Amino acid sequence: MSLKDLINKNLSHWVAGQGPERDIVLSSRIRLARNLDTIPYPNRADKDSKEEVTKRVLDATSKQGKIKLHYIKMDDLPEVEREVLVEKHLISPAHAKAGEGKGVLLNDNETISIMINEEDHLRLQVLIPGLQLEGAWETASELDDLLEEKLDFAFSQKWGYLSACPTNVGTGLRASVMVHLPALNLTNNINKMLGAISKVGLTVRGIYGEGSEYVGNLYQISNQVTLGHTEKEIIANLKSVTSQIIEQERQARNLLLKEKEIEVRDRVNRSFGILSHAYQISSEEALRMLSNVKLGIDMGIITDVDTGVLSELMVLIRPAHLQKLEGKELTPTERDIKRAELIKTRLNM
Amino acid sequence: MSLKDLINKNLSHWVAGQGPERDIVLSSRIRLARNLDTIPYPNRADKDSKEEVTKRVLDATSKQGKIKLHYIKMDDLPEVEREVLVEKHLISPAHAKAGEGKGVLLNDNETISIMINEEDHLRLQVLIPGLQLEGAWETASELDDLLEEKLDFAFSQKWGYLSACPTNVGTGLRASVMVHLPALNLTNNINKMLGAISKVGLTVRGIYGEGSEYVGNLYQISNQVTLGHTEKEIIANLKSVTSQIIEQERQARNLLLKEKEIEVRDRVNRSFGILSHAYQISSEEALRMLSNVKLGIDMGIITDVDTGVLSELMVLIRPAHLQKLEGKELTPTERDIKRAELIKTRLNM
Repeated sequence: MSLKDLINKNLSHWVAGQGPERDIVLSSRIRLARNLDTIPYPNRADKDSKEEVTKRVLDATSKQGKIKLHYIKMDDLPEVEREVLVEKHLISPAHAKAGEGKGVLLNDNETISIMINEEDHLRLQVLIPGLQLEGAWETASELDDLLEEKLDFAFSQKWGYLSACPTNVGTGLRASVMVHLPALNLTNNINKMLGAISKVGLTVRGIYGEGSEYVGNLYQISNQVTLGHTEKEIIANLKSVTSQIIEQERQARNLLLKEKEIEVRDRVNRSFGILSHAYQISSEEALRMLSNVKLGIDMGIITDVDTGVLSELMVLIRPAHLQKLEGKELTPTERDIKRAELIKTRLNM
Repeated sequence: MSLKDLINKNLSHWVAGQGPERDIVLSSRIRLARNLDTIPYPNRADKDSKEEVTKRVLDATSKQGKIKLHYIKMDDLPEVEREVLVEKHLISPAHAKAGEGKGVLLNDNETISIMINEEDHLRLQVLIPGLQLEGAWETASELDDLLEEKLDFAFSQKWGYLSACPTNVGTGLRASVMVHLPALNLTNNINKMLGAISKVGLTVRGIYGEGSEYVGNLYQISNQVTLGHTEKEIIANLKSVTSQIIEQERQARNLLLKEKEIEVRDRVNRSFGILSHAYQISSEEALRMLSNVKLGIDMGIITDVDTGVLSELMVLIRPAHLQKLEGKELTPTERDIKRAELIKTRLNM
């Protein structure tokens, strides 16, 4: 597969599309945890029960005519393809480990994914570019309603939606945004910001999920609790905080331009120079450099590179994508070399 | 003055010319210390005595028809022009500090310079590209003979040529080569090499003379003593050691290509990327990066850049050259920015 094909045909909408505040907010995500009543949670269910879940879900999704979804059985996919789905943020790393009953439903542009038999029977996800939490919520809610017409979800009047993990009980909702905050980092304001976020019921993680380090000035901000607030309250709170973060990042960028223009220009240009010339590069260094280049594009320092380069490359440079592109397994060193080639090619496209 | 003019019209032959082993030996230099008999050394001479020295030397050089020399009186030159001569390695930093009686004689392509009233009455220098110590010695010796026909040099049957500084007594000869040894450094063999050199009567310095640090993998190797050996012995010894160093550097390059090709390609390419994109750069970092780029050119990794780029730029990026190019004084930050621009322009020429 050529890089052009990979970019033109294989990018999810959240990677390649547009949305409000897209220069700072790469994506908005809504995830709902749902379980079928009377069937044990996947970690305690036998094969038959899991297959029953799949059967009922596929039945429900195929009988609604509004949202077209394709089913993929995890066991049918080669490992590299399962990893590609992880790298696209469409399934969880745990779900990529093939196992009985696991599957995923995807729509064409991959804004919707429904993991079947992950931790919960269903994990509905809507993932779209820019700051559009309400838009994502509307789609998720519509999908949830369509499914609920056909399926009996485990629900308690007292607790709300039940879930395999107590942290998901209640709304079953996890709302999150992926934000790019290079200027808050360069002006040494990022830690203050992260501290403030944790005090308003939100949590911050790196882009590769729980436990992953912050890299490339990219942060996933999401609600901590799913119980005790309505979905709308949770989303409104996250949206409001995100708007404040955007405002502060913009102020930090203006400050940089006023007080550290030379250093910023230098950092941006050097990062571009390294990305367009390195013979080998690790994912982590590439993300750091791409973050600088994106800042340069957003600040008008670099004018001949597309602003989507960071979100595209943060996905494309990951191991499974590289191996899919090359059509074979690669050693870590081979990946570092291919990654450097891919970035060079993309920057010259 | 444009950069093209500066490069095309203002580069000394040692910077822009060719010579044997030029990929490793940037230049060969012969310097002779001479004093006129019966006149005190410059540090103890009055104005009249110094003017007498100048008068006699100019008289002697003008009366020979073989080597055409131009006289420049230091006091007549603006400071930036005096510094340019230092950066071209044509006069010493001490000589650039204007003062009575100081001057320099230069030939057209600046392979010959004669400082007048520096530490000694005369410091004859021949500086040519590549490993051509004998060639440089022949020119220096011919010049010395021509001058000696007209001038009485202070000479003792016991000690040889007398000099203001005891370390120059005897032959008054300092022979040196400027070598570029990146592979010996990358393979961690440089310190062993430098240690060995000091055991055979030679001394190693950085490119900016005594006390300067090694930067850009560039080393000046010269004889330590001027007394007790003939000129031919001193030159033969330096030439022999230099040949061994060249051999070892070439072996180290082959080793790199065999055992660390990926790392070397990466280092070379990244250095080129930084040099061709940085918005500001210090002299020291520029020399380090240029050293990598030159190694890349010499090893065939970079094919579209001229091999002379290191020797040209190591001179052109220095402060006085930058200020001459801009036609005005520059702050250190302005110099770092102009230096980055100049390097970019030169790499794209």
